[in-house]
Amino acid sequence: MTTKDEAAIRTVLDERTEALRTKDAALAVARYAADVVSFDLAPPLRFTGTEVTGTTGVQAWFDTWSGPIGWEIRDLNVATGGDIAYAFALNRMTGTKRDGETTDLWVRSTTCLRRMGGKWAIVHEHVSVPFYMDGSYKAAIDLKP
Amino acid sequence: MTTKDEAAIRTVLDERTEALRTKDAALAVARYAADVVSFDLAPPLRFTGTEVTGTTGVQAWFDTWSGPIGWEIRDLNVATGGDIAYAFALNRMTGTKRDGETTDLWVRSTTCLRRMGGKWAIVHEHVSVPFYMDGSYKAAIDLKP
Repeated sequence: MTTKDEAAIRTVLDERTEALRTKDAALAVARYAADVVSFDLAPPLRFTGTEVTGTTGVQAWFDTWSGPIGWEIRDLNVATGGDIAYAFALNRMTGTKRDGETTDLWVRSTTCLRRMGGKWAIVHEHVSVPFYMDGSYKAAIDLKP
Repeated sequence: MTTKDEAAIRTVLDERTEALRTKDAALAVARYAADVVSFDLAPPLRFTGTEVTGTTGVQAWFDTWSGPIGWEIRDLNVATGGDIAYAFALNRMTGTKRDGETTDLWVRSTTCLRRMGGKWAIVHEHVSVPFYMDGSYKAAIDLKP
């Protein structure tokens, strides 16, 4: 077990929590590798590189929230080996949008990292909810763990 | 680069393709670790252990298809380090259900593995589609890469 590496990965994930809480776009993108591939909650299927690392889109999204964005990490599982690592967890996103709509959404997240120049960088991120197979094809935004 | 390990990971993923094509439930679950955590297309948020490794549910799902289930892997990215590995890709699932409904669905997949007893086992799997943020909250099942 490389406890030190695992602690470093947890710090990366805690930084994301802090970035959402303080709506700090620079901090939110600081750990992404230049060639990051993101599978996000919203379409398209995939975002890559500057689509993910740019702060403009992140800041615009942050600005749609009226206060801090809550990001709870539950049942986090971290594994490291050599210069790679992965982590997966359930996450609860909470907050209030500027239009008054409240969000309380559980999502699944998987994060893949690589150590580059002595620092851990996020090379891949996958965040999602499942969808109902009852013919409605509705995203399952009402689930709880 | 550990090309040999990467080749082994690709073999694991190819086995899944083959399991879907031949609807072989035993092959489909053969590579899962006993404590696997799966974030799947359908609710709930998470499946664990025997919910994933059991063949009964897989076989029942296979039986809802009238022929082979197509599973194309595109833009596969594999990384290995020490005794862990991860892979992510876009996947196209195709086929015809017994009720005549045809499926042609692009999904995102992330797979996390660990070498145990000299063999690679899947400890985590995350498969999803995004959803539309237009107020419909519909799963985006019509996307193409």
